[in-house]
Amino acid sequence: MTATRFTVRDIAQSLGAEAAGDLDLTIGQAAEPQDAQAGDLAMATNPKYADKLKEGAAEVALVWEGADWQSFGLKAAIFTPRPRMAMAGVTAQLDPGQHFNSGIHPSAVIDETAELSEGVSVGPLTVIGPRAKIGAGSVIGPQSFIGADVAIGEDAIIRECVSIGARVQIGNRFRAQPGARIGGDGFSYVTPEVSGVENARKSLGDQGEARAQSWERIHSLGSVTIGDDVELGMNATVDNGTIRDTEIGHGTKLDNQVHLGHNTRVGNDCLLCGQCGISGSVDIGNNVVLGGKTGVGDNLFIGDGVISAGGTNILANVPAGRVVMGYPAIKMDTHMEIYKAQRRLPRLMRDIDALKKAVFK
Amino acid sequence: MTATRFTVRDIAQSLGAEAAGDLDLTIGQAAEPQDAQAGDLAMATNPKYADKLKEGAAEVALVWEGADWQSFGLKAAIFTPRPRMAMAGVTAQLDPGQHFNSGIHPSAVIDETAELSEGVSVGPLTVIGPRAKIGAGSVIGPQSFIGADVAIGEDAIIRECVSIGARVQIGNRFRAQPGARIGGDGFSYVTPEVSGVENARKSLGDQGEARAQSWERIHSLGSVTIGDDVELGMNATVDNGTIRDTEIGHGTKLDNQVHLGHNTRVGNDCLLCGQCGISGSVDIGNNVVLGGKTGVGDNLFIGDGVISAGGTNILANVPAGRVVMGYPAIKMDTHMEIYKAQRRLPRLMRDIDALKKAVFK
Amino acid sequence: MTATRFTVRDIAQSLGAEAAGDLDLTIGQAAEPQDAQAGDLAMATNPKYADKLKEGAAEVALVWEGADWQSFGLKAAIFTPRPRMAMAGVTAQLDPGQHFNSGIHPSAVIDETAELSEGVSVGPLTVIGPRAKIGAGSVIGPQSFIGADVAIGEDAIIRECVSIGARVQIGNRFRAQPGARIGGDGFSYVTPEVSGVENARKSLGDQGEARAQSWERIHSLGSVTIGDDVELGMNATVDNGTIRDTEIGHGTKLDNQVHLGHNTRVGNDCLLCGQCGISGSVDIGNNVVLGGKTGVGDNLFIGDGVISAGGTNILANVPAGRVVMGYPAIKMDTHMEIYKAQRRLPRLMRDIDALKKAVFK
Repeated sequence: MTATRFTVRDIAQSLGAEAAGDLDLTIGQAAEPQDAQAGDLAMATNPKYADKLKEGAAEVALVWEGADWQSFGLKAAIFTPRPRMAMAGVTAQLDPGQHFNSGIHPSAVIDETAELSEGVSVGPLTVIGPRAKIGAGSVIGPQSFIGADVAIGEDAIIRECVSIGARVQIGNRFRAQPGARIGGDGFSYVTPEVSGVENARKSLGDQGEARAQSWERIHSLGSVTIGDDVELGMNATVDNGTIRDTEIGHGTKLDNQVHLGHNTRVGNDCLLCGQCGISGSVDIGNNVVLGGKTGVGDNLFIGDGVISAGGTNILANVPAGRVVMGYPAIKMDTHMEIYKAQRRLPRLMRDIDALKKAVFK
Repeated sequence: MTATRFTVRDIAQSLGAEAAGDLDLTIGQAAEPQDAQAGDLAMATNPKYADKLKEGAAEVALVWEGADWQSFGLKAAIFTPRPRMAMAGVTAQLDPGQHFNSGIHPSAVIDETAELSEGVSVGPLTVIGPRAKIGAGSVIGPQSFIGADVAIGEDAIIRECVSIGARVQIGNRFRAQPGARIGGDGFSYVTPEVSGVENARKSLGDQGEARAQSWERIHSLGSVTIGDDVELGMNATVDNGTIRDTEIGHGTKLDNQVHLGHNTRVGNDCLLCGQCGISGSVDIGNNVVLGGKTGVGDNLFIGDGVISAGGTNILANVPAGRVVMGYPAIKMDTHMEIYKAQRRLPRLMRDIDALKKAVFK
Repeated sequence: MTATRFTVRDIAQSLGAEAAGDLDLTIGQAAEPQDAQAGDLAMATNPKYADKLKEGAAEVALVWEGADWQSFGLKAAIFTPRPRMAMAGVTAQLDPGQHFNSGIHPSAVIDETAELSEGVSVGPLTVIGPRAKIGAGSVIGPQSFIGADVAIGEDAIIRECVSIGARVQIGNRFRAQPGARIGGDGFSYVTPEVSGVENARKSLGDQGEARAQSWERIHSLGSVTIGDDVELGMNATVDNGTIRDTEIGHGTKLDNQVHLGHNTRVGNDCLLCGQCGISGSVDIGNNVVLGGKTGVGDNLFIGDGVISAGGTNILANVPAGRVVMGYPAIKMDTHMEIYKAQRRLPRLMRDIDALKKAVFK
């Protein structure tokens, strides 16, 4: 698909990595070690791939430091002290892309007051609303929607079927995967009188005497502000804020189907893995990593550097640096200890019965 | 963005609230207390905002009953006995909206047999299918899809990229956020012979001797029926029923990424928070509030007024009025009691070891 | 809506089922027993529907074997040894469909190098990219996106607003519900130095001394390969692989909002129910059934025929044939035993206090 070819020398240089063998060999794509053919770069980043290299027919491989590359039948090798980091560089070079059109597709519907900077591409059947501003070099894919007064920085890559509501502000190098959505209204309702939910939250379980009522809508007057180098996964959703904007800091990445509620602030360099759900008015620090399906209750604080295991439900504030797990979330090592005890529970029951018989007769 | 301005008197009157100070001052938008400038309405609905009001430069604020408003440097104040309820009124007035076009955009593809009532707007690149009926005053946003024989009531607000499949029937004042989807086929399959899943469900864990088989598809002949005043969040999904329609009652709101399975009925005035997943053939009463990420197994009954905490997995019927939590869901107070006991489990283990040593020697 | 009518004889023959009564009666649609009118086929597949048949006005019903059909006021009946299996046949016959246009809609944007086989339909405002190949008889619905170099087999039914990224390969009889997305980039990032997450995964909870860093992106060079007879639910998402393709085998069905991470392989004839989330590089066997909201951690192995209950979080490999439940997932019967013990925990605490008092005084 991609016609571009690179020499081993080029790739090693771009990675700042050592290389050995015939540095003039060219490669056109990456391959797993067992599948690699001549002309491929086998990604053998770990000694466990030694056998798989022999299964395949690679002539060039990215290998771990100190690998005895010639014994695998290779003609050249690139050595990587931190293989996954090398993957970042290699895959960026070899990415064949989506083959979107360049320039403005004639079927796009672009408001005459929108401002598109130099080198912007717009795909077929995309809509760009009034007063929207798109930074230089940005690619807006097919069938996407950019709302009124939206501002997007330079070098964005927005895939097909993405939608961005009115007044959203986004920094440079933004990436959005298909179906990512920003700027829906927050989920915010109120009953005329105190509701059973309000009572149950205060009492931890008692609804009190509240009567059944209908919900009045609190509109979202805020929008969403997003920093530089942010990426949103497929079908991820980010709500508008109520009065101020919902915020995502620089360098933060949201995986597929992540949900971010109204008013929530996420700091810099966070990873929110697949299907995380963050309620409204949550305050998340920097360098936080939330495992897949992590849920966070509303109005909570998650400190810098917090890590959660997949499936965690966070129902209380988490101080900086903590590693948490469970429902409700507790420190991972405490969770492990309790979990081991739980597995012994059925036997424990029998022990206690025996004790009671012995003691109380 | 919004040019409309309101006097303090206007806003107080529309809320039915008391006001004091210079009632002729005008405001154009709401702001958080610490960010508010002259011309803004600071939303200081709680005594905890007193200091934040002093940080900002608000001249007008929405304040709690009995607030000493003049001490905060305000020139006027509006008093609210139930602040979140006042938020509903104020935000409705100040909502700047999405700036969609009015009228029918020329790029929309509308079947000649579709019936659009007075004052309907249709956005660019939207598709409206044969025999669809759209009620007066409804706004169908950009790039949305309205299928064959769909009926939508009056004053709907449908955002960008929404899709509604054939034969769906919707009441008045419907709202759909971007990417909301109604009318996909239900997830319903059957194997020619009894399957391991059928056995495991009956035996609670034993697959029996069922052999591996392929799945035959049960088609969805039903559609979806939705009442008045319903709202669907971004990327929420509502399946068609198998024989009859899947149903959502009046006044019920579904948050982002909520999933509603085939044949399920949800009553009136329910809130289903972010990423709730309701299986097929569930019967949910009125005024039910399910916290974020609540899951509900198929063919269950959830009574009126039930509340679930975030992350709850409901695997059995829940009687009316109960507040539940956990996996599987139990009464919240029972869950709390068990949870406290669990945290003591590791110490308990040591106590029992000591007891055994003392008693059995 | 559907004008086609079938005789009782036709339907019984197509199901290979016995019938009795007036086999020349015609029916036009299916109905639930209590709602059925003359001209409907009442779906009374179980003795519990006997009373409901009497409530309705059905003249023809699909009934259980041995039913005393005449006593229900029916003029004809079709008998089914495995009622849900009969549902598959009946609903396929009576499915009224979505009424999409046939042929290529003039508003579709189709690259001149795309190859559409005989009898392909393309809906309004759909985009088909360069070199894409669509097999004979396939229906591509409105506002969908087919990327560059995609290949789709014969007789696909792709609904509205579906997107399929570059290079995805799909077999025959593929079905995609509205908003299903294939071919977003995998969620794969790396820090220049060892991160706290890497440390915490190894130590099960200790982040060590890792410093805060930004994330470098690992691009997805792979795409997605999908077998025959696969179905994707509304807003489901399937990621590209990193080096090789993400894979879905023959006959596997993904429900609404299911997430499939990069490099993951799912075998044949699996069911992944609503909101399942499968991380990257997971290897799932054949005939696996994962209940709604099941989560699976990355790099795990799930053997053939595994079944998980709704809400399960799988954090370790699961051997073939096992039925699992819980967080973390364990065998369902073990989970039940522990769960019963947990419910007795608060009483147990009191027993132990009494024992301690008696023994240690």
